[in-house]
Amino acid sequence: MTKPLILVTNDDGINFIGIKKLKEAVEEFGDVYVVAPDAERSAVGHAITITTPLRVNEIIEDGQLFGYAVNGTPADCVKLAVSQLLPRKPNIVISGINPGENTAMNVLYSGTVSAATEGVIQGIPSVAVSITSFKYRKYDLAQKFIKSLMKELLEKGIPRGTLLNVNIPPFQEQGIKGVKIARHGNGRFTEAFEKRTDPSGRTYYWLGGKRHPSYEDNDNDDTLVWQGYIVVSPIAFQLTDEKALKPLKKWSITDFNG
Amino acid sequence: MTKPLILVTNDDGINFIGIKKLKEAVEEFGDVYVVAPDAERSAVGHAITITTPLRVNEIIEDGQLFGYAVNGTPADCVKLAVSQLLPRKPNIVISGINPGENTAMNVLYSGTVSAATEGVIQGIPSVAVSITSFKYRKYDLAQKFIKSLMKELLEKGIPRGTLLNVNIPPFQEQGIKGVKIARHGNGRFTEAFEKRTDPSGRTYYWLGGKRHPSYEDNDNDDTLVWQGYIVVSPIAFQLTDEKALKPLKKWSITDFNG
Repeated sequence: MTKPLILVTNDDGINFIGIKKLKEAVEEFGDVYVVAPDAERSAVGHAITITTPLRVNEIIEDGQLFGYAVNGTPADCVKLAVSQLLPRKPNIVISGINPGENTAMNVLYSGTVSAATEGVIQGIPSVAVSITSFKYRKYDLAQKFIKSLMKELLEKGIPRGTLLNVNIPPFQEQGIKGVKIARHGNGRFTEAFEKRTDPSGRTYYWLGGKRHPSYEDNDNDDTLVWQGYIVVSPIAFQLTDEKALKPLKKWSITDFNG
Repeated sequence: MTKPLILVTNDDGINFIGIKKLKEAVEEFGDVYVVAPDAERSAVGHAITITTPLRVNEIIEDGQLFGYAVNGTPADCVKLAVSQLLPRKPNIVISGINPGENTAMNVLYSGTVSAATEGVIQGIPSVAVSITSFKYRKYDLAQKFIKSLMKELLEKGIPRGTLLNVNIPPFQEQGIKGVKIARHGNGRFTEAFEKRTDPSGRTYYWLGGKRHPSYEDNDNDDTLVWQGYIVVSPIAFQLTDEKALKPLKKWSITDFNG
């Protein structure tokens, strides 16, 4: 039996500790290939590179091939891996481990999730893994959970077009409260640009922001992860706003004939 | 009564003809502000700029302020406009006019749609307008349709969180077949990277691709626009895959306790 092929990627770049820990965690489950950006590509959303060429460099660690570095976005890495670099179509795409949560509306900006989005667009079961802290340096808990998830994913599968978005709380020392399967929340960041003056006296703006919790109820990724649960949210890109179709059909624009 | 404030943006840059034609089309409906990238930012998806500062420059045309150029992405432009540059929250965000369709899975990569996505994240009714041709140079039909749409949008409104994604066929000379309100399709591009060698002998890859029509039925944006209809698709970012929640709750990962 052919071993599963697992594509590992991220948005923090191939040299980031998180992707090394992710590779370690999934190694026992199949043939693992790493294809990742050559440097940080955070908050790139689902960007792809169409106006410039992509380059690929082999990254060697301890005399062995660690993976391929691409001068592109996470979505570029998945596209290029699937169509050019891997020996066959991957069975799983897994992206991370990202420092900083990717919950609620952050998901739309996230490079980590974008790699998994590209995976599901290509018809491959895909996972994004984030830890809700920028200061996190211990990955044992995350690795243990990833192993537990991989086992189930390979055994049970997920529907075509679904990605699993995993967020892990930063409370490793105290232990976690448990694992929740929950909805993708609608919380967002309130923008707070700082208006500053540079050393030459010119104005510039820098994007900051305050977390704005999801307002619907407690069954969502960003409320639960801050309560101390590991949260797994199934995400699909069925973007049609079904409830808006009917009222729109009554607009007089439908009579327009140029 | 205060006139509606209309924010106009795009992903092709503030100097592109499409945004000038869009501004012209909406001018009669309110106070129009243009805040757009200083240069092309196509296929940037929902990228935002968090690691570098943003700069704003006034663009003067015929001795008058045309708009503000930002060294960032379409989503940056909307964020910065709403929080720093405009006198009040806009009533409408409208993005375009983009050369090239933004239908089906292209929507996820699109900078044009991303600006409208940021609009709805900010709670503002938002519209993205694209024309299904890169060679299009006449904008009269598009402008006429935008006027017809703006009238209805200001009168009837759309639900919070819904954006209208408009695609216009390139068959202006023969006239259009009509206007359809339709679903967001699931067609995608099949990747076809070209592997080439540069003048120094190094390999590079360049992303191309072939359109892959939506496979469900005919009630979708990309099938209909190629049949010659103007298509308006309501889009919302309710990303939870509801049908996947229940089976996932049976996975043994829920027993995981670190």
